[in-house]
Order: sequence, then C-alpha cells, then structure tokens
Amino acid sequence: MKALVYHGPGQKSWEEKPKPTIVSPGDAIIKILKTTICGTDLHIMKGDVPEVTDGRIIGHEGVGIVEEVGTGVANFKPGDHVIISCITSCGKCNYCKKGMYSHCTDGGWILGHLIDGTQAEYVRIPHADNSLYPIPAGADEEALVMLSDILPTGFECGVLNGQVKPGDIVAIVGAGPIGIATLLTAQFYTPAEIIMIDQDENRLEVAEKFGATHTINSIAENVVEKVMQLTDHIGVDVAIEAVGIPETFELCQEIIAPGGHIANIGVHGKSVCLHLESLWSKNITITTRLVDTVTSPMLLKTIQSKKIEPAKLITHHFRLDQIVDAYDTFGNAAKEKALKVILSS
Amino acid sequence: MKALVYHGPGQKSWEEKPKPTIVSPGDAIIKILKTTICGTDLHIMKGDVPEVTDGRIIGHEGVGIVEEVGTGVANFKPGDHVIISCITSCGKCNYCKKGMYSHCTDGGWILGHLIDGTQAEYVRIPHADNSLYPIPAGADEEALVMLSDILPTGFECGVLNGQVKPGDIVAIVGAGPIGIATLLTAQFYTPAEIIMIDQDENRLEVAEKFGATHTINSIAENVVEKVMQLTDHIGVDVAIEAVGIPETFELCQEIIAPGGHIANIGVHGKSVCLHLESLWSKNITITTRLVDTVTSPMLLKTIQSKKIEPAKLITHHFRLDQIVDAYDTFGNAAKEKALKVILSS
Repeated sequence: MKALVYHGPGQKSWEEKPKPTIVSPGDAIIKILKTTICGTDLHIMKGDVPEVTDGRIIGHEGVGIVEEVGTGVANFKPGDHVIISCITSCGKCNYCKKGMYSHCTDGGWILGHLIDGTQAEYVRIPHADNSLYPIPAGADEEALVMLSDILPTGFECGVLNGQVKPGDIVAIVGAGPIGIATLLTAQFYTPAEIIMIDQDENRLEVAEKFGATHTINSIAENVVEKVMQLTDHIGVDVAIEAVGIPETFELCQEIIAPGGHIANIGVHGKSVCLHLESLWSKNITITTRLVDTVTSPMLLKTIQSKKIEPAKLITHHFRLDQIVDAYDTFGNAAKEKALKVILSS
Repeated sequence: MKALVYHGPGQKSWEEKPKPTIVSPGDAIIKILKTTICGTDLHIMKGDVPEVTDGRIIGHEGVGIVEEVGTGVANFKPGDHVIISCITSCGKCNYCKKGMYSHCTDGGWILGHLIDGTQAEYVRIPHADNSLYPIPAGADEEALVMLSDILPTGFECGVLNGQVKPGDIVAIVGAGPIGIATLLTAQFYTPAEIIMIDQDENRLEVAEKFGATHTINSIAENVVEKVMQLTDHIGVDVAIEAVGIPETFELCQEIIAPGGHIANIGVHGKSVCLHLESLWSKNITITTRLVDTVTSPMLLKTIQSKKIEPAKLITHHFRLDQIVDAYDTFGNAAKEKALKVILSS
C-alpha cells in the first residue's frame, strides 16, 4: 500500500509500505476513505515530537471501511463504515474505567505517534471495539472526520473543562481548527458572549461566521484592554487557550475574572509563568487535558441533528496521493486560508 | 478600649484605642471573648501585606458577645454569642449571590486588613447578618474560634476544591494549622491515604495523631521518591498546597497523578513555574481560592456532632492583654510546638 512516511525533521514521502495485518485479537484493519492533517502533524514534521521515529506513518484522524477484524473484535465486521478515534483505548484499565482514555495503559495517543497512523491506504487499529465508532447510514462521512480529534478536543478540553455555562462570557485564544471546534461546541451551553482572539484576520472572520460575538486581533489591538472594556473591567468567566505558547497562557491569566476557569487545550513545549501572587486569592480553576474522546458518540448526535455543522470547517480537498501538496497548503494556513483539508482515497 | 495595633513592619503594641461605634445600619459591635493569631498576621507584621497601614488593629478571627447592633441588623441582638467570620459579606452583590463571599464588592477579607480587626476588646463587624454566625447554647466557644478562618479555609480551598473522594490518596504539603484543618476535614470524605509533608517533626507527629496515614519529613527524605513509592509510581489523586512558596507548589506538580487535583491554599508572594510542557496532557486541575466561609454553618454541625474536634488544635492559652507574648510564642511555632494560641478576654 501507499502511505505518508516520516523520515526525520522536514523529511516525508508518499511511498510504498507493507499493508498492515492483524497483530492482536482486538485489532481491526481499516481501509481509509477520508483523512486529514492536524497541527500536531506539523509539529511532528518539525521534529518537535521526538518519540516519532524514522519510518513511522503519521496521522491520527479519519473514517474508513473495516477490512478485517481479529478474533476478539465483537462490535465491528468487514464492510462497516467507522470513525477512527485519535485515542486508542482498551476500555479495561484503571484510567479507561474513569473515562480517561487518553491515559489508557495500553493505548492513549499512539496512532501516527508510537504506531503507524491514518495517512495511508490502510491502518491497523488496536482495541478496535473501543477505539472505532460506527457511522450511521447516510451520514456525511467527510464531516465525521472532525470527530476523530478536533471536535472532542475542543469540547472536552475547552468547553467541558472550562465549564461553560449559560450567560457566561467566554474568550477563546486561538482561532485555528481547534479554536473553531471549541467555538462551535461552546454554543451548546448558550454563553452570553464568545470573544475570539487571534492574529489572523481571515480566521477571525471565519469565527464570526461560526458564532463569535466579538473578535480581537491580537496584533492590531491591546487584547487585555479590549477584553476589560467588553466585560465591565471584571474579566471573562472562561478563558480557553487553544495555541500552546507561554504568551497566550499568560494572556488567559490576565483576562480571567475572579471565580473563572482557564481551560488549556494547547500542546505546550515550555513551562509558563503562573502568577499565583495575584491568582492565589482569585478563586480560579486551571485545567489541562489530552482529549479522551469519551464524548465522540454524543458529538455524533449533535452533528446528525444539525446542531453543529463541522463540514464548514473543511476548506480544501485533495486526493490521498496528493498529501504532500496538502501538507504545503495546510502548512501555509494563513496564506491559503486553510482550516481543515480533507484527503480522500 | 485596648487593642493590638500595627505600626509598620516589626512594630506593634497593645494600646488604648477608641471603642468602635456603629457606622452603617448593618453593623454590629462585638465584645471579644476569644481570639487567636493567624499565620497571615505574622506576614502583616513582617510588612508583607502593604495595604495594612500604621494604626490598624489586626486580627480576623474570634468569638464574642453582641454589644450593639445597627438598625438594619435583623438576625442578631445584644447578648447573642457569635462566631466572627474572617470574611465580611453583604450577601447581595453578584459575587455573594454565587457564594463567592471572598470577593464581596463591599467586603471580602477586610477585617484586620482594611478595617480594624478582632485582636481588641471590641470590634465593629459590617454586614453583621451575613458575617456573624450564632453560637448554639452549651457549645465549646474556644473550639469555635477555628470556624472563623482555618477550618473553612482548609475545607473549602483544600478539600472541596481538591475534590477529595473516598479511596483517594491525598498529599497535604504543610502541617501548620491550615494543613491540620485540611487533614481533619479531608476525612469527611474517607480518602484511602493522607500523606502529610512538612519540615517539622513535631507537626508531623501531631498530623499522625489527627489521622495522617503517612508522614514525610521534607528535610530528611526525598519527598517525590517517597510519594512515588507509596503510590505505585503513579502519584497522588489530590495534592494540597498549604505553605505558599514556589518550592511547595512545584512539589505538588511533581507528585500529582494523571487526572489529579492540585488545590492551592497558600498565600503566595511570588509567581511560580507551571510545567505545562509535561502537565498539558496530564488531565489535571489546579485551583486557587480565598476562603468564602460559606461552609461555616455546615462545619459547625460537624463540630457539634463531634465528627471533628478542632479544640485539639489549641496548644497555648493567654489572656488578651498578653497578646504580645502570644505573638512571640506563635512566631516561634516550631520551637514552642505551637499550633493555635487562644487569647481570652
């Protein structure tokens, strides 16, 4: 089969690889129908994720058709159309029993990271019963690619951890795909205002179309001042960090109201300064989370009932064998006005 | 009347001051029966709390008798015995409506801070209806001094914010009065283990008597190694910071298990390093809080039903006019084996 293979920082190619086979009874082999590229894949390509080694097929999102299942798989059979979760989970370990699939002792984020991933014609999914979701007949399969990672990530790490409530003022720092997924799912809880903060005017325009009540361009404006103006000088009830650098995490600390929640989504490579000298008495809550994807079935229902329309996040289409070009487009997201690119087999 | 007056860093005296009078209709004047000294008072004395100015009567804990009430006070009358909350709250502002009395727009922690406090023969309590609690007949009034601050602080900022649950492994960093109050109230929720960490062997011995299942002397032992041994190399479910320095907050980050809660109680004067580069994916929750004292009535019931016996925290007794000596004793807590000192009029 063909697959996108990582060969060290800056090196990748679409090349021939052996088709995966069943290794454990719980495995399924999936023929990829649609996949996409994640910001995390760009980090991998830069060499920021050293556990990804030369020869690894990357990618952790996609939908496909079950090709073959191991003897231990009960819920899926060849021919089933499935969503692949970016998180592999046994469903049986102590972490899985608590719904913390991200920390599954025999899984977690391994796809396109510690084992071969989805940017390929076929992929092996361990613990298939708990790591795949059936696609209802007639569903828009392209839209469901957003259920592999970005929708549950925005929703679980941002909206649920941030405890967004009716009437809240919410700030989302970062209007990339994850920030937009957060914006979409935050509206389940009817906050009063959603302030979207980014450097990219195009992304802020997209955010407005998707329900942001205010946007702040962090290059053109003084963000803290503007947020304070918008909040009667109190700050926001929920600040969601969807970038992953110290500056944006510090910004969240500056704009949070007493009693507020800071929900971190960003993947951070450095420590940050936590201003406990002012925050110790402000009754705030800070959360971190690697997506567990426990809400994927619930999010599927919100898509089926058209409460959210994640297909609108898709800006570009390519054939799977054009993936190297797709990386170029996604890697120049601002210039190309790209949010999510879909690769179809 | 006589009162303990702050005269700038290192300067205090027990001296004559005018007896307080009703200023607003919601005020009550309380004759102090019992008061105590808080670690925060020592910080004030060092000059660490610059809002406290020369001439201020300090102290924010105590029980007393209502001497006089303003025309707007409905719940109390002269002669009533009352617990004084360290937090003054109007009960009517947006923060009070959310139970965040600590951020009351006409109150919060003001006693012995922005207005005169309880280390005096008399004290004026604004918003008396919401800031005093009636003492049931026959109660041990000395024990109830612990309801002014330390018990609700340990319980709200530590136990409730840390979400201590049955079966949890809890670490409490700091075995001072607040740490011990946390230890006492954490047991309401039947955690499996409570690990107490301090530098002072005497305080660790006290912690063992009060229910700690393990103690670690942070001078004699490698705390992280010991905690990891005790937790199967997973870390603790809840880490409660009851000191207020960067080192102890960093320790909490090192010993927390994935999915765990770090509850900060300590008063911090400096920013701290938050290791988001490892914590971003660990599904942890960090909380800060200035005590709201919303649980004081509930905690009173636990004392009345002997579920906790906070009188055991009292190690020393003085007459109110011996308060300068009491400061010396409390200021040398390790040498004097002091936890809480009680001053009686």
